[in-house]
Amino acid sequence: MPFIDDIFQLASDSVLSEKLIPFTSLFVIFLLTISYLMGNSLWHKILGRDKFLPQGKHVYVTGGSKGLGKGIAKLLASKGAHVTIIARDKDHLQIALEEIKDAAKDREDYKHLIFTAISADVTNYEDSVRALNEACEIHNGRAPDFIFCCAGACKPGLFIEQDISEFESGMQLNYHGTLYTVHEGVKRMARQRIKGKVVLVSSVLGVMSFIGFSQYAPTKYALRGLAETLRNELLLYDISVHCYFAGTLDSPGLQQENKTKPKITSEIEGDDAALSPDQAAKALYKSLCKGHFHITSDLGGNICRVAGKGAVSPTNNFVVDSLLSAFAWIGAIPFRYMIDKKVKDSKSEYPLRD
Amino acid sequence: MPFIDDIFQLASDSVLSEKLIPFTSLFVIFLLTISYLMGNSLWHKILGRDKFLPQGKHVYVTGGSKGLGKGIAKLLASKGAHVTIIARDKDHLQIALEEIKDAAKDREDYKHLIFTAISADVTNYEDSVRALNEACEIHNGRAPDFIFCCAGACKPGLFIEQDISEFESGMQLNYHGTLYTVHEGVKRMARQRIKGKVVLVSSVLGVMSFIGFSQYAPTKYALRGLAETLRNELLLYDISVHCYFAGTLDSPGLQQENKTKPKITSEIEGDDAALSPDQAAKALYKSLCKGHFHITSDLGGNICRVAGKGAVSPTNNFVVDSLLSAFAWIGAIPFRYMIDKKVKDSKSEYPLRD
Repeated sequence: MPFIDDIFQLASDSVLSEKLIPFTSLFVIFLLTISYLMGNSLWHKILGRDKFLPQGKHVYVTGGSKGLGKGIAKLLASKGAHVTIIARDKDHLQIALEEIKDAAKDREDYKHLIFTAISADVTNYEDSVRALNEACEIHNGRAPDFIFCCAGACKPGLFIEQDISEFESGMQLNYHGTLYTVHEGVKRMARQRIKGKVVLVSSVLGVMSFIGFSQYAPTKYALRGLAETLRNELLLYDISVHCYFAGTLDSPGLQQENKTKPKITSEIEGDDAALSPDQAAKALYKSLCKGHFHITSDLGGNICRVAGKGAVSPTNNFVVDSLLSAFAWIGAIPFRYMIDKKVKDSKSEYPLRD
Repeated sequence: MPFIDDIFQLASDSVLSEKLIPFTSLFVIFLLTISYLMGNSLWHKILGRDKFLPQGKHVYVTGGSKGLGKGIAKLLASKGAHVTIIARDKDHLQIALEEIKDAAKDREDYKHLIFTAISADVTNYEDSVRALNEACEIHNGRAPDFIFCCAGACKPGLFIEQDISEFESGMQLNYHGTLYTVHEGVKRMARQRIKGKVVLVSSVLGVMSFIGFSQYAPTKYALRGLAETLRNELLLYDISVHCYFAGTLDSPGLQQENKTKPKITSEIEGDDAALSPDQAAKALYKSLCKGHFHITSDLGGNICRVAGKGAVSPTNNFVVDSLLSAFAWIGAIPFRYMIDKKVKDSKSEYPLRD
């Protein structure tokens, strides 16, 4: 194999080993440092991109009585934000409100902070507008600075076995329940020239999906599409948009979800380490400080994010995302083979009723 | 620059120029041939993957009286399929039915082919089920072999200026109007053990979006999410799923769409060469013969497809898609800068009404 020999010859050439290898090592270290800095909030602070400063600002959180919504409400209260939470159940709202106050009670400015709980059904347009109205009135008519849309639910099941009403109510809650608040909120923010933030809560199932999630994934894909459109469009009003692809959260929603989850779906998911709502809120907060558009809080989600980033969504860190994307392009293939094989091998477990 | 000199030295080394260059050229030619073959229907025929044989099969097409739906109905009739088209307007249905018959009239088996037009509103669940019922009755209770969901519409506009009802009706037509038919159709296909095909018509705006499409893109993203879930899940029943990211089509829909399109949206789109519905139908048909899951019919759409492919959607041609994906990762950056700059520079053109 003269060709192979040539390669070996080149590799062992003294010129290469003496000059090229140290040079390459330095270059790699340089690249890693830059990529670390580019993803680090320090770098964003240097560039002045750390624009998420919740102190003294009004944060409006739907789905704020439980799970991620309550987590983010508590965290931002502890950072000095005025917080309004929206949910249907008044008892849950009251419990959450106490926890939110608790999270901020050690602050010096605690007395000046306004914490509000409003009972409303976000799947109803008029109710969503009324809730925003009430929240604005408390703040002298001023629209919220930051809107977090965390209300949502997942009902897994086999496509042909689920009733069509499950699909409709899923889209109504997950997509329209976010759209109504964002539409009304952005209208007010734009007209009042508030350079705020809108955070849509999608899911890792908004960047990839498989058996069992036909009721859920499309609603979360729709939110990704809305976020992608608004990221560009709301530059008109200096409003920034962010999309959180949440992974498995150890929340009341997960327990509900697991009741109807097909066995094969659980098997594919495996023993995904679920984050607590507080951990997820913290990860979301950190990414917002870094100015990320697409946000994830676990490695699997991050791989799915770069694999499905699309042509117009920005990277979070060009160097890291490029490397991860190259890995995902190849690395995701065995995953697809696994899920496809699993479904094909499970035919007998899911017999058809005639 | 001793390092640079070393590189030149290596490049001009006789060993390299005499052995490596011809070897590399051969390798590149080999790669190109393989990649061409892998994307070519010939290769798929060799592998036995050419499974889209519409002759003698029953094709069910929603939105079949106009645009892409009519295009695909005519094309598949000319290939010897029984065709049922669904739309609301009876006059348009009748005109389309004549064109479909015309497309098949030179075939020897013409007399045995059944062409049907059923007036139904696909945005209504009960009506969607009734239409499928009627179509099956005509075929002695047998479910369709192939379902094409082509009904859809786009109403562009600025997010905060559009009425919330536009968003709701868009999701109802584009997403639920497809879901109802697919849900009912797949249930019947699965129970009758028909190894059929389901084709969802998404859009290039289902893989990327920008200003003006907040009413439309989320509905097409939702369809992508549904397709991705069902691609995996319907392996249970040997039903294959395909998702067409249609580009600009010179159809009645486009004229309607352009009536409300913001100027900035048209400017970003540029002079996109619109395909005729017949050209799009032909491109879709060819890709189905190749067994592609994600289907596009123009280069821009194809770049957006690979850029947003995600972790579990298969490539169409691994070699070509990999090269295109590397190009898209870098090449899409100037596009994003362009659309973002355009929006930022257009603030004065879109003043806010207080």
